[in-house]
Amino acid sequence: MKTIDINCDMGEGYGPYTLGNDEEMLNVVSTVNLACGFHGGDPSIMFKILNSAKELGVAVGAHPGYPDLWGFGRRVIPFELSELRELLAYQIGALQAMAKIAGHKVTHAKVHGALGHVVSDEPETSAMFADLVHTLDDGMFLAVMAGSQLEKEGEARGMRLAHEIYADRAYMDDGRLMPRSQEGSVIHDANQSIERVLQMLDEQCLISHTGKRIPVAMDTICIHGDTPGAPATARKLREQLEKAGYEIRPFA
Amino acid sequence: MKTIDINCDMGEGYGPYTLGNDEEMLNVVSTVNLACGFHGGDPSIMFKILNSAKELGVAVGAHPGYPDLWGFGRRVIPFELSELRELLAYQIGALQAMAKIAGHKVTHAKVHGALGHVVSDEPETSAMFADLVHTLDDGMFLAVMAGSQLEKEGEARGMRLAHEIYADRAYMDDGRLMPRSQEGSVIHDANQSIERVLQMLDEQCLISHTGKRIPVAMDTICIHGDTPGAPATARKLREQLEKAGYEIRPFA
Amino acid sequence: MKTIDINCDMGEGYGPYTLGNDEEMLNVVSTVNLACGFHGGDPSIMFKILNSAKELGVAVGAHPGYPDLWGFGRRVIPFELSELRELLAYQIGALQAMAKIAGHKVTHAKVHGALGHVVSDEPETSAMFADLVHTLDDGMFLAVMAGSQLEKEGEARGMRLAHEIYADRAYMDDGRLMPRSQEGSVIHDANQSIERVLQMLDEQCLISHTGKRIPVAMDTICIHGDTPGAPATARKLREQLEKAGYEIRPFA
Amino acid sequence: MKTIDINCDMGEGYGPYTLGNDEEMLNVVSTVNLACGFHGGDPSIMFKILNSAKELGVAVGAHPGYPDLWGFGRRVIPFELSELRELLAYQIGALQAMAKIAGHKVTHAKVHGALGHVVSDEPETSAMFADLVHTLDDGMFLAVMAGSQLEKEGEARGMRLAHEIYADRAYMDDGRLMPRSQEGSVIHDANQSIERVLQMLDEQCLISHTGKRIPVAMDTICIHGDTPGAPATARKLREQLEKAGYEIRPFA
Repeated sequence: MKTIDINCDMGEGYGPYTLGNDEEMLNVVSTVNLACGFHGGDPSIMFKILNSAKELGVAVGAHPGYPDLWGFGRRVIPFELSELRELLAYQIGALQAMAKIAGHKVTHAKVHGALGHVVSDEPETSAMFADLVHTLDDGMFLAVMAGSQLEKEGEARGMRLAHEIYADRAYMDDGRLMPRSQEGSVIHDANQSIERVLQMLDEQCLISHTGKRIPVAMDTICIHGDTPGAPATARKLREQLEKAGYEIRPFA
Repeated sequence: MKTIDINCDMGEGYGPYTLGNDEEMLNVVSTVNLACGFHGGDPSIMFKILNSAKELGVAVGAHPGYPDLWGFGRRVIPFELSELRELLAYQIGALQAMAKIAGHKVTHAKVHGALGHVVSDEPETSAMFADLVHTLDDGMFLAVMAGSQLEKEGEARGMRLAHEIYADRAYMDDGRLMPRSQEGSVIHDANQSIERVLQMLDEQCLISHTGKRIPVAMDTICIHGDTPGAPATARKLREQLEKAGYEIRPFA
Repeated sequence: MKTIDINCDMGEGYGPYTLGNDEEMLNVVSTVNLACGFHGGDPSIMFKILNSAKELGVAVGAHPGYPDLWGFGRRVIPFELSELRELLAYQIGALQAMAKIAGHKVTHAKVHGALGHVVSDEPETSAMFADLVHTLDDGMFLAVMAGSQLEKEGEARGMRLAHEIYADRAYMDDGRLMPRSQEGSVIHDANQSIERVLQMLDEQCLISHTGKRIPVAMDTICIHGDTPGAPATARKLREQLEKAGYEIRPFA
Repeated sequence: MKTIDINCDMGEGYGPYTLGNDEEMLNVVSTVNLACGFHGGDPSIMFKILNSAKELGVAVGAHPGYPDLWGFGRRVIPFELSELRELLAYQIGALQAMAKIAGHKVTHAKVHGALGHVVSDEPETSAMFADLVHTLDDGMFLAVMAGSQLEKEGEARGMRLAHEIYADRAYMDDGRLMPRSQEGSVIHDANQSIERVLQMLDEQCLISHTGKRIPVAMDTICIHGDTPGAPATARKLREQLEKAGYEIRPFA
């Protein structure tokens, strides 16, 4: 049987604030990227989602970011490389301990927002992050984009990689995501995005906005949970995948 | 040969701010209680001290506190028991990961300030904390005060305990610390405090302010590093202990 | 013509987070209590609401709270009286400057959450707050509950007072709010709450849960905006008030 | 009689943390730039310095910065221009209110650290800041560097300007400060720096590191208070200035 994973960022609220539809999305996805308290999230939110995920058989990974609640981790804060390493280790470790008391496990790491872009493609930071994750837990997966620097660093170290494709983001002809600033970068039509996902899986190729095929590995589909219609779209995607013969389960 | 440990709170600065004389104290003590970023400390400070401690053969334990940088963890913030568990797990886990990348280890846990008092003596919180530490790492020590609720909880679980005596704090006849609000609660004279420590070790008894002897276990001497004269006093204490035939080494 | 004011807490989001239905509520109320960045709110949110309020002819007051975003200002944090004065002045001043650049004005002060209760009834804190507001702007109103210590302090200083009644909270026979911990403290039925408000205004009496009448001054009706149905209920209240011949306008 | 002002940044501690020698420096300078709680400072520290300054006849200005305690306001955080305006207004207003309850006044504004550089020289931000200060208080001074964009913006609006020279920083031949990254940018020798200040005042010219003279207006000498020897150097500077016939008094 064919298998595929669906992942979604979660736990990005804070104290009295909620963001996204965590409870609903938890019932659709097979893997969660869980915010670690710096760009969003707090210990209580983390623990609650860890418990729900464990109960539902959903895998949990670390989703650390810049220490910037106000900016939601979407601004580049100029830290030294060593400081980035320290604040990433801090967040991942915090989640590992909380997973332990929830009887669950941290299966992978995927960095959030502006820092995620730096980690994915800036060579020194990619190398640092691959080393860091490998040191913290050599069984931990790196979630990577096909063609990214982080994918190369992970491969070079023989690490476990989870290759991601995005359900609702347009691809360029070189296989990279179209920048959000460009017209057409986000696919808003649910049916169109689901159809494209199925086709990409079927062909094991990214399909660029011009129709170009780029063959890549595919372990997990990244979806978003922070719009009002997100849970309905997510359920539909899952149903269509199951109909097409895929078992939805954690890549880890 | 007789052995004893000397411990001190460290890493309580933040960003540009320093508190205490960490570098100097690191050369005197055998164990550090390292702040974890909530009442003081940040990932860079934590990592720097972990590295120095490793190099110097100094043991490191977690020193988590309330999330209250402004109040330095000295104010009771009314959290639910479950929230306390979550924020304590978060901090200890963060330090464990940072220790891992520094090639060092977290040997014990000792809670800071106002939360330290609650953890030490409030029955539900003591039990929660003993369980938490045991779950996170069943080889981890609890630093405890003789006669505290936390000591009882640790004993009941068969946990490793590090019994502390305070070098510069007066004891009541029941073996508890004299509250800071009382006259004479802090012994400011270095010679007097050193002499008392030696005598307490020699007799294996706390000596109360009235001279009463209370027999207790003694694994480590807690000293303070945040006054200008602290390093000199600490060095003197260490010299006198060594002169009296004690080897200073981590309890862990 | 009879006039009455409707007030609501707003601007309690933070960065990416929203709380309540500020935009909708702004079109119903005549007065806003605007969070000042400590328990919720940030400078951008404050400025946005100040601009909308100015445009809509809605009055704006300061709604400062404890510095506790995580706990949303609902936990008592043990500050000294002098510290409370300083952090309240800081927040009110911040809002005054932002109102100035928005071409608007801060007409009153009403403290949020746990600190609001302390300010309303703890004698030293009430006196401090009345003095503080009077010093910052001797034309500024204090929003007060009938029978509170703060009302007395405001009267003693000859200050402008805005007497509040709550649309959806039950009153005790002594005219105080029924504590939230008690069954029946919140009136969830919109029609019932609107009917009670109209009757209280008509009789110029609080109506306790046993039906007892307590004559009080009434300048403004406090409503809540943070439930999904809040805007609809608020519009209904406003319509019924207008139907009953009230002009809705700021007390200030 | 000739007069000159001496200014120094202060109040940059936080909660338990101190930075610099505020109490000693307050007895030497005639003007304080007071941190407003975002890059350093808290309401209690602000109030304490406002009180001391008032008592000593020392003028106080606002010293706002990026919201970045961890980085001490020395990192550029990418905010929108509108957000910068909002967070600067917030901080200045907070200080104005605190000055009011201390019976003192905010005479000028000078932005801290990384944001200070942006405000001084980035055209849109300079214009925004000049407008902001003018709107908040049209009698408030802008502290400016000779030749800066902010000086031009202030002049264009007919605002009060306080022209600064730096006691311990080398100047380039174009009259700008030598970047800290360059060798020789900071004059560490107290005597040399004092002599240079006196000569610059005497000639009413900046003296560049090559000896070039650049005629500029001079209202205030900026000194630093955050090194161990700072108070002694500051006292010496003041004495030499007084000996040379200058009365030290606030520019405002």
